[in-house]
Amino acid sequence: MADPDDTALLQDFPSREDGEQLDEDNRLKPAFVDAVRDAVKEGDTGRAYELVEPLHPADIADLLELLEKPERYALAAAITDLMTGEVIAELNDYVRDEMMEALPAAAVATIAEQLDTDDAVQLIEDLQPEDQRAVLAELDPEDRAAIESALAYPEESAGRLMQRELVAVPEHMSVGDLIDYLREREELTTEFWEIFIVDHRHRPVGTCQLSWVLRSPRHVALADVMKREQTLIPVAMDQEEVALRFQKYGLISAAVVDEGGRLVGQLTVDDIVHIIQEEAGEDALLMSGAGEGDINEPLRETYSARVRWLIANLGTAVIASLIIHAFGAAIEQLVALAVLMPVVASIGGNAGTQTMAVTVRAIATNQLTQSNTRRILTREMKVALMNGVTVAVLVGLATALVFTPQLGGVIALAVVINILTAGMAGVVVPVMFDRLDQDPAVASSVFVTMITDSMGFFAFLGLAVATGLTG
Amino acid sequence: MADPDDTALLQDFPSREDGEQLDEDNRLKPAFVDAVRDAVKEGDTGRAYELVEPLHPADIADLLELLEKPERYALAAAITDLMTGEVIAELNDYVRDEMMEALPAAAVATIAEQLDTDDAVQLIEDLQPEDQRAVLAELDPEDRAAIESALAYPEESAGRLMQRELVAVPEHMSVGDLIDYLREREELTTEFWEIFIVDHRHRPVGTCQLSWVLRSPRHVALADVMKREQTLIPVAMDQEEVALRFQKYGLISAAVVDEGGRLVGQLTVDDIVHIIQEEAGEDALLMSGAGEGDINEPLRETYSARVRWLIANLGTAVIASLIIHAFGAAIEQLVALAVLMPVVASIGGNAGTQTMAVTVRAIATNQLTQSNTRRILTREMKVALMNGVTVAVLVGLATALVFTPQLGGVIALAVVINILTAGMAGVVVPVMFDRLDQDPAVASSVFVTMITDSMGFFAFLGLAVATGLTG
Repeated sequence: MADPDDTALLQDFPSREDGEQLDEDNRLKPAFVDAVRDAVKEGDTGRAYELVEPLHPADIADLLELLEKPERYALAAAITDLMTGEVIAELNDYVRDEMMEALPAAAVATIAEQLDTDDAVQLIEDLQPEDQRAVLAELDPEDRAAIESALAYPEESAGRLMQRELVAVPEHMSVGDLIDYLREREELTTEFWEIFIVDHRHRPVGTCQLSWVLRSPRHVALADVMKREQTLIPVAMDQEEVALRFQKYGLISAAVVDEGGRLVGQLTVDDIVHIIQEEAGEDALLMSGAGEGDINEPLRETYSARVRWLIANLGTAVIASLIIHAFGAAIEQLVALAVLMPVVASIGGNAGTQTMAVTVRAIATNQLTQSNTRRILTREMKVALMNGVTVAVLVGLATALVFTPQLGGVIALAVVINILTAGMAGVVVPVMFDRLDQDPAVASSVFVTMITDSMGFFAFLGLAVATGLTG
Repeated sequence: MADPDDTALLQDFPSREDGEQLDEDNRLKPAFVDAVRDAVKEGDTGRAYELVEPLHPADIADLLELLEKPERYALAAAITDLMTGEVIAELNDYVRDEMMEALPAAAVATIAEQLDTDDAVQLIEDLQPEDQRAVLAELDPEDRAAIESALAYPEESAGRLMQRELVAVPEHMSVGDLIDYLREREELTTEFWEIFIVDHRHRPVGTCQLSWVLRSPRHVALADVMKREQTLIPVAMDQEEVALRFQKYGLISAAVVDEGGRLVGQLTVDDIVHIIQEEAGEDALLMSGAGEGDINEPLRETYSARVRWLIANLGTAVIASLIIHAFGAAIEQLVALAVLMPVVASIGGNAGTQTMAVTVRAIATNQLTQSNTRRILTREMKVALMNGVTVAVLVGLATALVFTPQLGGVIALAVVINILTAGMAGVVVPVMFDRLDQDPAVASSVFVTMITDSMGFFAFLGLAVATGLTG
């Protein structure tokens, strides 16, 4: 441990022991990773253990992800007793599944028993069905029942994410009763941030922050300390919805209720934070057509996620080609058209992507709803007009200088038309998908690109012909 | 309030009172927004108040954002006593600043005094300097000092985000002492989830979850309950870093320390959740060149954020045009080249964007570091080869059928070359920006597009000429 007076260390690193392993961005240092890699390669398990031992479980998980597959297994074998439930829970889904598939069912069951229900479910849910059955058979009956009932809920639902361990007490208890109850009941979880107050049918009637309990005298009734307004999460709610509620209402934990309104579990924000991050980050991946975009995903899945969008893009490119083809004679007469036409399409594509990205984010964060769609569309058309005029002046002048003033006028007008079209499409396409209950991030790109490409070529070539430039 | 037996309601809505206002996605219903809008327009402030009163502060903030500017001010005037600090804190930055600029300094000061330091700082930090000074002058001296010292830290740093109110006690206290202390000191905050244990120089030596305190007998020393490993946040740390640590280590709260290692504030996850969401979501906006992409941003700022990328894109389009221009003679001889060349560029652009989006996300989440860059590059080149061959076969066959087998061969080869180039650029460009300490999401797009466009036209037209197709 570093000297407590070493304030430079204190400043730069989250934990006093991490100085040698982590850089200033809290990433594992390449030199450290190489040292572990070398130790593993040389079969020096003692050295590998010694290097890894001071790390936080989240950093051990990161380390395993950074290594290549054979090194990863060798390291895991060298540090078995550091491979705690926490490390496993922090691993990337694909890496974890792969490692679990490689272990015998009994070993997976032993790991699952160390974990909270939610983490155990995560460990088991993506195993092959026969592996899953084998692991479940190895679990003790109580854990098995808990995990099986979680698995009965849809994937990515609150029922899969929740932990069953929680503290729920009746309304008539006093603060003193509660403290005594918590001290006496050794089997209770220590992972809770709020107490749930329930009625005689086990339905939540309020929640109580622990700080309120600690600040109140023993004789006060919980009913007078608790907050009656609460955000209840239905067990079937999708995780994206759950994440939005945690964020919107600034929740630390929330009660999960079944169809009868009975308390069946709790969600805590530390589990939701990952989902908030994933859901917010996935838009960039979805819009680009990269699917989940996980660098640990098996190659075959990555290929199939991406190639379908490339093929869809091919379809839109063919439409653009047909438009160009229709103007083949004009291009033969004036090859400058071929030289300049990608400019119009490309600028429009970029403007469309800008507007689409903004619209998709605003929809995802519930900032854009039916109530303000018209206003946002008007706003985007204004931005498009300003951008369109600016770019058109630049392109038009340059073209007039290099080619002819007429061609400059034609391209300038085509650019304005295409940027306005892009602004319109960038709002309307994602909004339309949202109204159809489709994720606007997934399919908007292809349509917006198709529209801006086609319009780019059509406006430019069409105007050139219409104004007699090629005649 | 709904009948507690009405379980359908319970299931669909977070709070039992929200049934008429929120839809199943927890967004304000258009009909509800229209009702408020109508009440405001008709000057029926009583009705407006009645409608808004049951809403959660976060929903009141959403409602204000959905309205147009004049309606927004009229509503705020109609519901002044519902415009609590919580509502103000939940408002979009631009909307809040605009509303605050419209209020007299004394009114802003009154609102600021209701808020925790962190929210008060947020309220004041973006005001015009003279407005800021006027508001500060209206504050009582203690609040002013707290806010001024927060404003002395850099924007978006932990010092700006932290709240000063926290519970810190010495190590020698017992659980019983702590509970007595918490009950007696009425001025203490109730917003805390962990207790910080400090040494005699006020430096944190451990943290203690409240559940641990509640589960332990009175006589136990805090030193035996607390956890000594802790994540300390330096006061100057950037909020993006802070968000990553909260996420990585699953923190609920964390101690903020000054240069001397002394405890100066705390951060709680409910404040960090917004940042996690923003930072993860902004990549999509940055990559598309849409800047912050906030729909409430003033038009002028939106224009200037976007037009610069359109102009940069114009630059890359000019390079592509120069390449096409060099092959002008070939296009005149074979106009099919002009028809097909956008296909090659467009597919390459899409493939490049896919890889770039994946790389940028992996860098942002610390999954891609120097230790595994080579492996990820290899992986992406394999994906590119698989995608390239698939798309090339489709394009090649179609072209062979419609035009000539030779042209089919040329375009197929050009597509493979361009998708491989795109895969390479999609990894190398963002990694390069990251190594140069630049945000890879900001500038990668322009470069990747430039590379795929240029290579698309060059490979296709160059191969066509080289294979004698035009000659």
